[in-house]
Amino acid sequence: MMNSIQQNIIDNQHNMDVRCIVLAAKGNVFSAGHNLKELTAEQGSDLHSQVFRKCTELINVIHSAPIPIIAKVDGLAAAAGCQLVASCDIAICSDISTFSTPGASFGIFCSTPGIAVVRAVPRMKAAYMLLTGLPINANEALEAGLVSKVVQKDCLNDEVKNVCNAIASKSRAVITLGKKFFYEQIILDISTAYARGEQVMVENLATSDGREGINSFVEKRPPQWSHKG
Amino acid sequence: MMNSIQQNIIDNQHNMDVRCIVLAAKGNVFSAGHNLKELTAEQGSDLHSQVFRKCTELINVIHSAPIPIIAKVDGLAAAAGCQLVASCDIAICSDISTFSTPGASFGIFCSTPGIAVVRAVPRMKAAYMLLTGLPINANEALEAGLVSKVVQKDCLNDEVKNVCNAIASKSRAVITLGKKFFYEQIILDISTAYARGEQVMVENLATSDGREGINSFVEKRPPQWSHKG
Amino acid sequence: MMNSIQQNIIDNQHNMDVRCIVLAAKGNVFSAGHNLKELTAEQGSDLHSQVFRKCTELINVIHSAPIPIIAKVDGLAAAAGCQLVASCDIAICSDISTFSTPGASFGIFCSTPGIAVVRAVPRMKAAYMLLTGLPINANEALEAGLVSKVVQKDCLNDEVKNVCNAIASKSRAVITLGKKFFYEQIILDISTAYARGEQVMVENLATSDGREGINSFVEKRPPQWSHKG
Repeated sequence: MMNSIQQNIIDNQHNMDVRCIVLAAKGNVFSAGHNLKELTAEQGSDLHSQVFRKCTELINVIHSAPIPIIAKVDGLAAAAGCQLVASCDIAICSDISTFSTPGASFGIFCSTPGIAVVRAVPRMKAAYMLLTGLPINANEALEAGLVSKVVQKDCLNDEVKNVCNAIASKSRAVITLGKKFFYEQIILDISTAYARGEQVMVENLATSDGREGINSFVEKRPPQWSHKG
Repeated sequence: MMNSIQQNIIDNQHNMDVRCIVLAAKGNVFSAGHNLKELTAEQGSDLHSQVFRKCTELINVIHSAPIPIIAKVDGLAAAAGCQLVASCDIAICSDISTFSTPGASFGIFCSTPGIAVVRAVPRMKAAYMLLTGLPINANEALEAGLVSKVVQKDCLNDEVKNVCNAIASKSRAVITLGKKFFYEQIILDISTAYARGEQVMVENLATSDGREGINSFVEKRPPQWSHKG
Repeated sequence: MMNSIQQNIIDNQHNMDVRCIVLAAKGNVFSAGHNLKELTAEQGSDLHSQVFRKCTELINVIHSAPIPIIAKVDGLAAAAGCQLVASCDIAICSDISTFSTPGASFGIFCSTPGIAVVRAVPRMKAAYMLLTGLPINANEALEAGLVSKVVQKDCLNDEVKNVCNAIASKSRAVITLGKKFFYEQIILDISTAYARGEQVMVENLATSDGREGINSFVEKRPPQWSHKG
């Protein structure tokens, strides 16, 4: 499953007609995390290492994809499934969704999911989820920052479409440079971030779609993106 | 506009009678961000650089001002206007206010606003705002941490007065040392922050208003601040 | 009081029958912070230094305890009392609880409480609390991330029991390694955190309770923890 998601992102991310990628599931489980049968002692430490390395690799692929990766959650996201949600660029969920990191109940503390979760939600909420394994509901997830938006179950498709359309209405090249700098600046101290951010803004304005966007605004007409920067 | 705000802060921040500064707007736009006419290709990269450098400069002036700078928002705060709100010490907004970073719709991704926004709100909310350009409302802004407080439109003046009075009832010198250390410690690792914080507390107690505050408490009387530390 | 809490944690944290520690108060004040009579000029800077050093020491003891430390708040948590809540692993509070950092009103800015508070809640909320001294209520505290959960006053005991039971149902050794890595990874950059996290997961699976947890899941039976890792 991890290989498949990763390969699908890699294969499609440079297709100019693909403007964002939505991760969704059939049925009422978004993802319950790792297959615990791969984590038995019989499978051995080498396989365990491979499984967790692959998971990190997938998350890096999501972060470095040139287009937004959106989690569409309609049900349970647990353990590495919760990590996956927290690692997407945007997460939209239905009001029946729940989120948990219950690994400790199965003897394996959600240490790697916790890396993504505590960078998405307040420490007090992350520690509660990790130490108790208890689930939080969709509204708690929104309040905590684990998801971007919650909507009623029957509005989920429309809301995701809304988000995709908002992204698709912009220049692909501008979204790519914006996403790239967003993750770049998060880990910088604020002064370095601004010094670099000023340059990025000036470079953005010098691209063909940067110029077109400003011109279209000044000329009061819709922009015609080249999507090529 | 940026020059004017900056100069007004600099000119008034050392006036002992000024205890905090409120940034507000006439009408229902707090700030829609940069003037896009300054960002056309004709104006040239040098002017673009100057504009963004000035913006960072203004934000540094807000952070280093010895008194609190409060955003009073009653309407739209977009792009660099949203950055300005996120960069104030305190932000109070009315319930009709909205916040967005829609630059990508005009070909210029809100890369510098994103620096302030992602340091104020959860990453999942910041990425949603930046990648879609869609607005969030006042309650979403509060929930996310972009503003300190939301009140009904007709209570906004009173609430801002309330905050200003709370600040004005304290020693100016103590507020100044407190704000200074607050931004100093945020960027330190927690151990260094505590080591330095312990010193700051001891130094604070040794100031004249530190001694007066403790004495007034022990003697069960109102404090008489010198405001001079 | 600080000595007593610290000593009680140290004395009990390695008792295998103790699975978590709950900090609670009698009456409607969880903690109003430092005793200001210890902070008068007469007491002298050396005592002031000792008081704040002890406070940091206590917080380090909470962080490094091998079992979760839970704040059960049913009333006021102010100044260093608010810092104490923000420094626990989990905080559960009743709906009548309030939280504030009003030190500046007594001439002593809550600089050290601010270190814990701004690492728990959005910067905009922390600055509001510190600069105005105004209290926030239980729901605002939850929304901001200062507490993990809010319940009605008459449900507080049950909710804390619920959390304790959730922790006690797991392997003590797994909770210990999970808590330890949680605080370790928070301060790492995300790549280093994942590299280290992958190792921790593999090591966790190789412990006796890691193996037992996975086996019990595969064999569809309740786990029998050794609690010894």
